[in-house]
Amino acid sequence: MSKLRFRISMSLDGYVAGPGQTVKEPLGIGGERLHEWVFPLEAWRRPHGMKGGVVNESTPVMADELANIGATIMGRNMFGGGPGPWNEADPWMGWWGRNPPFHHPVFVLTHHVREPLAMEGGTRFTFVTDGIESALAQARHAAGGQDVALAGGARAAQQYLKAGLVDEMQIHLAPILLGGGERLFEDAGALQDLALVKTVHAPDVTHLKFVRT
Amino acid sequence: MSKLRFRISMSLDGYVAGPGQTVKEPLGIGGERLHEWVFPLEAWRRPHGMKGGVVNESTPVMADELANIGATIMGRNMFGGGPGPWNEADPWMGWWGRNPPFHHPVFVLTHHVREPLAMEGGTRFTFVTDGIESALAQARHAAGGQDVALAGGARAAQQYLKAGLVDEMQIHLAPILLGGGERLFEDAGALQDLALVKTVHAPDVTHLKFVRT
Repeated sequence: MSKLRFRISMSLDGYVAGPGQTVKEPLGIGGERLHEWVFPLEAWRRPHGMKGGVVNESTPVMADELANIGATIMGRNMFGGGPGPWNEADPWMGWWGRNPPFHHPVFVLTHHVREPLAMEGGTRFTFVTDGIESALAQARHAAGGQDVALAGGARAAQQYLKAGLVDEMQIHLAPILLGGGERLFEDAGALQDLALVKTVHAPDVTHLKFVRT
Repeated sequence: MSKLRFRISMSLDGYVAGPGQTVKEPLGIGGERLHEWVFPLEAWRRPHGMKGGVVNESTPVMADELANIGATIMGRNMFGGGPGPWNEADPWMGWWGRNPPFHHPVFVLTHHVREPLAMEGGTRFTFVTDGIESALAQARHAAGGQDVALAGGARAAQQYLKAGLVDEMQIHLAPILLGGGERLFEDAGALQDLALVKTVHAPDVTHLKFVRT
């Protein structure tokens, strides 16, 4: 059975983005500190087209996270381009350039209809306007038997968590305080049978893996 | 130099007490779930006068936490008895019975003057009305060269964290959501040079140890 696997970086005070998110600061003020643990890793640099990098305790966690993923779901805010209807004259293409690092179908939750967007390297963005269950069904179909990644952000994750649809959750806990922004576990209900099964201590991050019991 | 060592149990969504704290439910609704990891431990049962119990990955963490502590600081809410002036006719003596498990001087932050309260077993509660720095100075003096424990709750901890007075912080992260209550890192400022140095994965809890760099 294809699983829905959610992974996200969160600060010790529970934020997955800093305050004041804008087009220029998509992660909000200080939000890039959530991800400082990942940028030096060889396991992150390689799929982003860069050579070299560090191998440490986070490396097998990243390998596990990337393995057997056939499609990704994300919220509109994570895809970016601001809220509201899409600008047809100057369409937003995502944060990731011409060749995004997904290399598989990506389903974007939005209230605004838009034609699918095919990028280089196998990434194809499909915009889903009929809710989280439809996006999950479409992503599962597109994944062809592989699992589906839920990439965030906070509101998309809250909806899937509350609906009890998440099979696996990997929290990359950054030992920092952001003091404001988007909180992951705000009105998220219960953990819905997700149990902590593994903790990994790595430089600048603690990885907490939860699975459905 | 005598250190101020803060330790507290926190849920994955950042709460150190559940919603609806009352005299009958001092930890709030569901708040006892924060501490489920500790109750079975031999290292917890022994100082509370009970025999038997479990030895696991949390045992050395508890031993480390209890070692070399000569005094404790806590907030009024943690000592209990409701807010406002003390009831002189029926004085609140704390949650812990005649022989509290501290066995050393305890300093309670409050806005309301009260005479010190000597209990059995060496615990003596002193009520401090002139602020956190005074409480820390008094506790350091009483500890006679040993360290001082900061036991919580959220508001007392926030004040010490913001003032940069915490030398060591042990977060017992319970893999649960409480959905409301007292959040630890609310308006807590930065981590003030506290760096994560150790993570311990134990049944029903992850221990995160921070020290001043």
